[in-house]
Amino acid sequence: MDSMMMDAMASEMKTSGMEMMDMAVMQACIDACAACEQACTVCSTQMMDCSVACMNCADMCGAMMRTMLRMQGMTAPVMMSMLDACIAMCRMCMDDCQAHAEHSDVCRMCAQACRACMDACMEMRDAMTKMAS
Amino acid sequence: MDSMMMDAMASEMKTSGMEMMDMAVMQACIDACAACEQACTVCSTQMMDCSVACMNCADMCGAMMRTMLRMQGMTAPVMMSMLDACIAMCRMCMDDCQAHAEHSDVCRMCAQACRACMDACMEMRDAMTKMAS
Amino acid sequence: MDSMMMDAMASEMKTSGMEMMDMAVMQACIDACAACEQACTVCSTQMMDCSVACMNCADMCGAMMRTMLRMQGMTAPVMMSMLDACIAMCRMCMDDCQAHAEHSDVCRMCAQACRACMDACMEMRDAMTKMAS
Amino acid sequence: MDSMMMDAMASEMKTSGMEMMDMAVMQACIDACAACEQACTVCSTQMMDCSVACMNCADMCGAMMRTMLRMQGMTAPVMMSMLDACIAMCRMCMDDCQAHAEHSDVCRMCAQACRACMDACMEMRDAMTKMAS
Repeated sequence: MDSMMMDAMASEMKTSGMEMMDMAVMQACIDACAACEQACTVCSTQMMDCSVACMNCADMCGAMMRTMLRMQGMTAPVMMSMLDACIAMCRMCMDDCQAHAEHSDVCRMCAQACRACMDACMEMRDAMTKMAS
Repeated sequence: MDSMMMDAMASEMKTSGMEMMDMAVMQACIDACAACEQACTVCSTQMMDCSVACMNCADMCGAMMRTMLRMQGMTAPVMMSMLDACIAMCRMCMDDCQAHAEHSDVCRMCAQACRACMDACMEMRDAMTKMAS
Repeated sequence: MDSMMMDAMASEMKTSGMEMMDMAVMQACIDACAACEQACTVCSTQMMDCSVACMNCADMCGAMMRTMLRMQGMTAPVMMSMLDACIAMCRMCMDDCQAHAEHSDVCRMCAQACRACMDACMEMRDAMTKMAS
Repeated sequence: MDSMMMDAMASEMKTSGMEMMDMAVMQACIDACAACEQACTVCSTQMMDCSVACMNCADMCGAMMRTMLRMQGMTAPVMMSMLDACIAMCRMCMDDCQAHAEHSDVCRMCAQACRACMDACMEMRDAMTKMAS
């Protein structure tokens, strides 16, 4: 996500109760979701036993990314619930890909992208929890 | 979802611990997600204050639908987490659309599709809980 | 696509030059795209040599379906170009799946869904050509 | 797209007649599609008269991006047809957004992202034409 776009988005959009959101944390989370969707899309074509997990994970990360980009049409509890789903999916896909990371560079990098996305979603979740308290 | 396709899918696919799944419940949930994605896609173009919620809901329902269709690359806890996110999103979008159901037939039908999807996801969740116990 | 939703959509939406569109043809095309996206999503998980074609075809049919549902933000030439891409993709995926239709019921049904989607997109294309002339 | 991932992808994947593809051109095109999907997703929430075009463009760019990432399940003519559709959509969306670029930074940046994506798809198309000759 381009930072100028992110700034424009932050200043122009209605933010439906998300005004206090730490934009740097959200930008990092959007980038991690985008990278994970791409890595999983590549990895899914390898026809290894992680393929279908990668298809599912690419779909979930794409939906998560677009929902954050929209910054509206969302309440904090719904966002938390989506982050939980994305975290669970990334963890599972990471485990599946890690299992043959030694044999495939694509799987190894996909496992890394899943971990990065899982971590970024957890930080986003933490930032939202702090915002609410 | 065509029932012949569903049967073929059930018999040919590896099912990763989902062998006991009630296929009729899952088929109903797939259909409800597909209908909700379509209704939300239409409703999002009306430029009313539910538009962005509808974009988010269409994305989540589409990802949920495809994940069920794949019937693999999934554990029960991850599926439960995605169902929770889909239920939360459908409820919020339903509330947003219901608010102007009197003024727009599209919003009224979108709210109905969101409710049907929310209900179908809750039944899917119940079926999975029973399966696990 | 529910026909009541289709009627509401036709009457409420701005139609950007598509007012003359034969709604029955478009509804049939939307339904065929939805069915093809689902069939291809199932078929892609079989790890046969049609799998990646099915992933690509599911994506294209989903984008095509949502673009028709929106009925705006579109000119006739852009719609024609998307229909051409969807027709080309469905034909290729159909050929790939047909190659092992004897060995897999899922592939056989996926090939049928691809053919139906290709035909519906060609009828949509014809209807648009007549509309323009 | 991470260049290490791109290298791994290029070396591990079957390439179905795309072995001669200039990977730098494809990587640039993947990046431009990803950026355009994101910009259009943000811009679509502004409820200006480009909103629906942006929804359509985000969908098409996302499908185009994932199809290139898969590097399989594809013939050159199908890829060309998809590139044509993506070029047509980006041009239309760019024109719609450019019309109020003075009033909205998001629209101005979205128009830039659409132009960059259109250009990258045309370069990809040229590279494929040269490859075929």
